[in-house]
Amino acid sequence: MTPLEKARQRAEIDARTNGCHLNPDISFLNDLLDGLVRNEERYGYPSCPCRLASGKFEFDRDIICPCDYRDPDVAEHGACYCGLYVRKDVFEGKTPLQPVPERRPPEKIERAYGTTAAPVERSVEKPDTGRKEPSDLKMRIYYCKQCGYVCYREEPPYICPICKAKREMFAELTI
Amino acid sequence: MTPLEKARQRAEIDARTNGCHLNPDISFLNDLLDGLVRNEERYGYPSCPCRLASGKFEFDRDIICPCDYRDPDVAEHGACYCGLYVRKDVFEGKTPLQPVPERRPPEKIERAYGTTAAPVERSVEKPDTGRKEPSDLKMRIYYCKQCGYVCYREEPPYICPICKAKREMFAELTI
Amino acid sequence: MTPLEKARQRAEIDARTNGCHLNPDISFLNDLLDGLVRNEERYGYPSCPCRLASGKFEFDRDIICPCDYRDPDVAEHGACYCGLYVRKDVFEGKTPLQPVPERRPPEKIERAYGTTAAPVERSVEKPDTGRKEPSDLKMRIYYCKQCGYVCYREEPPYICPICKAKREMFAELTI
Repeated sequence: MTPLEKARQRAEIDARTNGCHLNPDISFLNDLLDGLVRNEERYGYPSCPCRLASGKFEFDRDIICPCDYRDPDVAEHGACYCGLYVRKDVFEGKTPLQPVPERRPPEKIERAYGTTAAPVERSVEKPDTGRKEPSDLKMRIYYCKQCGYVCYREEPPYICPICKAKREMFAELTI
Repeated sequence: MTPLEKARQRAEIDARTNGCHLNPDISFLNDLLDGLVRNEERYGYPSCPCRLASGKFEFDRDIICPCDYRDPDVAEHGACYCGLYVRKDVFEGKTPLQPVPERRPPEKIERAYGTTAAPVERSVEKPDTGRKEPSDLKMRIYYCKQCGYVCYREEPPYICPICKAKREMFAELTI
Repeated sequence: MTPLEKARQRAEIDARTNGCHLNPDISFLNDLLDGLVRNEERYGYPSCPCRLASGKFEFDRDIICPCDYRDPDVAEHGACYCGLYVRKDVFEGKTPLQPVPERRPPEKIERAYGTTAAPVERSVEKPDTGRKEPSDLKMRIYYCKQCGYVCYREEPPYICPICKAKREMFAELTI
């Protein structure tokens, strides 16, 4: 199995297990999957093909595909930021694919690149101007107050992967 | 997207990711989804449209949709208590929808309302007769001995959301 | 519902929620499900119908169906070791079912039976030759560095059940 086939497989399984679909436009889909493969080769993880990774895992964690924003974007806008994953009605052609606004918070963009605007060049080529280092990141244990799902992250997920509760339903678990 | 459409979407995604289906009777389904929307407005969480919530989150946690009883009820009876979620054979019309007995334990009903019978009025309008306060609730960390899934709840889930092991497969994780 | 029907139901739900399919050969499938039912009766847990269980839960944990090896085997080989769960293209007849090599590590086989070769008789009937006792097992809390999924296991899963990241994406969570 080629890397591209592996990427498609992982994405297909992921879509099925998360109640969404892959973009039905095969050529468009292949371009995105190809971007995932290239990012995995370059960075060691399949970061979003439509966003520029910083190359620092801790800063890119939220944009590794499936990114943190996929589930709320598919639910609200019918597709993820890339258009790789789409909602059932979009998949079936009942709803047109719309541009999806960037949900990634400006502070996450800034700490990754040292600027709120997505950089045109790799951040490593820019002067370092006091932006946060990965060691500043505070990971916490969170649990879903509805179903009890436990995760260890900087922030709770937007949607609970188990019961689909909203982020507000998460609380910190202090042990 | 209207609140009703959002509720349907969440339910659809939830059904797909949990191996069940939404009730194929659209009118019946809409009534249930509408009940979820109204409960979310009233209580701040989408408690079961077929059960009366106490209004205290800690006491209602087990009946927030998808309720704790959905997965075992769909597996055993072909539908959840409401009939919102149904099993594949029921969805396809091969098995008729049957009444589903209440699986919620009497002690959970009692602590929520101060009586084992579902109240006809809101519990806040009844005299308080020594029933448990939320602070009495004991949350614990459990893990599935088969797959390792970790959750923080009063009791383990009936069915492991990851590997589908039974409740008996859970043990307390003491740290 | 008979035990066989219950086993099929659990397997169907499990397949749907994990992005794979049950073997379309009904007779073959029923033999496997029947093996699961018999193992559950014999050992108290539905260990793999194609592998011999030791009868000690801690040593058999990785081969309780769905076994630890199912997801990577379905992804890579198109089917689990038994052929109970298959990939979509195999289910649809586009790819033939191939023999699946044993992914279970030799050390796990050895500690269960005291030999790297699968025994022809139950291990309890063999002399005990210094092999590890369950108390030697070291369970740890792991988390997925991509999505934050937390689990308590001897080793991380091969594939994150939430975001499908590879095992390498897991790290130990020290509290």
